[in-house]
Amino acid sequence: MTTPPPQELIDFAGALADAARPVIRRHFRTPVAVDIKPDASPVTIADRDAETAMRALIEARYPEHGIIGEEHGAMRADAEWCWVLDPIDGTKAFIAGKPIFSTLIALVEGGEPVLGIIDQPVLGERWLGSAGQPTLFNGKPVHTRPCTELSQAILNATTPDMFTGQDATAFQALGARAAMTQYGGDGYAYGLLASGFIDLVAEADLKPYDFAALLPVITGAGGAVSDWQGQPMRL
Amino acid sequence: MTTPPPQELIDFAGALADAARPVIRRHFRTPVAVDIKPDASPVTIADRDAETAMRALIEARYPEHGIIGEEHGAMRADAEWCWVLDPIDGTKAFIAGKPIFSTLIALVEGGEPVLGIIDQPVLGERWLGSAGQPTLFNGKPVHTRPCTELSQAILNATTPDMFTGQDATAFQALGARAAMTQYGGDGYAYGLLASGFIDLVAEADLKPYDFAALLPVITGAGGAVSDWQGQPMRL
Repeated sequence: MTTPPPQELIDFAGALADAARPVIRRHFRTPVAVDIKPDASPVTIADRDAETAMRALIEARYPEHGIIGEEHGAMRADAEWCWVLDPIDGTKAFIAGKPIFSTLIALVEGGEPVLGIIDQPVLGERWLGSAGQPTLFNGKPVHTRPCTELSQAILNATTPDMFTGQDATAFQALGARAAMTQYGGDGYAYGLLASGFIDLVAEADLKPYDFAALLPVITGAGGAVSDWQGQPMRL
Repeated sequence: MTTPPPQELIDFAGALADAARPVIRRHFRTPVAVDIKPDASPVTIADRDAETAMRALIEARYPEHGIIGEEHGAMRADAEWCWVLDPIDGTKAFIAGKPIFSTLIALVEGGEPVLGIIDQPVLGERWLGSAGQPTLFNGKPVHTRPCTELSQAILNATTPDMFTGQDATAFQALGARAAMTQYGGDGYAYGLLASGFIDLVAEADLKPYDFAALLPVITGAGGAVSDWQGQPMRL
């Protein structure tokens, strides 16, 4: 997919991230109540309200577009254009007061992610990837770092606890050969990868709203995304 | 130890952190060379130069004081007053571009840490703990969060890989009973604990320069520090 989405939609994606920022900042480092979802992951009013703010903008401007959101579910998911939203990717980091969570926004066209945003609301940092275009960090092009040897690579994973069974074996093998392993970061780590500070991110059990936004950001920065077998990731 | 150090020394500790900040910021998210020390931990020019900047100030102002630094070693370590410096605690996070590393500065009087600073140079965040005084975050008092049940606690560790043998068993038992476990953060996580966003931090294999600064920050915020047996930590 090398045709970028219309500029109007790129601008609109930025407006969605702009709308989520103040909602999230308002609750950062305040004593928010934490609810545990059926999948055992935590959620707060900041996650829910930030997604609500973004959905309201989409409904008003592009009522024919689909929406898949982590907190408020899917509607018109089969639409030609569909927005995939994770208002706070890294809710645990958000709760703990670490400013390395992010808002993930993807635009999917005919099943392919053609636009992705990784936005850190507290630090005012935004990675924007559009199909066929260089990835931008706060408006400036960024590139992954040349790293041809696994032994030179900085490897990142949010937590080793996400890996079970064969995934755990594979991750251990990867970590044993990498130059160093870091934990923490969720989607924000993929932004750092796009900027050339991390060489490799390994994750397991990702949902579409966890990775749809990451694909355009990573590929537009010169990086590659695959499953453990080296196959492309699909929604 | 409930007698705070003289205000002059508290102010001077702040001046040390002020001196380290620009050195570290200059190198943050630049392609710094990474050297691996004999203990397998990484070090960069930012670590070395930030410590050099702080040592120069101490030598000039208090030539009779001792200095124990992570990068440039110990001198006059038996002096009545001794500065314990870790210019970048969380060098791996620094290298990966995550702004959750910190500069740790402690002042030890007769073997007891009486002042501690946790400073995040990029975000401009500083926790200051002085014996017998409330811990300050950017000048305002902070407090640990009331949390009487382990099942309600947010547990943090920099990496599970630091725990081996009995430590690993103990950490697993702790994680199994805590509300959630987070990885990443190094000394910065103790600041978040002092501010009431993290309830429990577990670490292993800490050196004096890793924890001397943390003790006054944590205790001044109402928290407690101990080894796995519940005994006080000593330098």
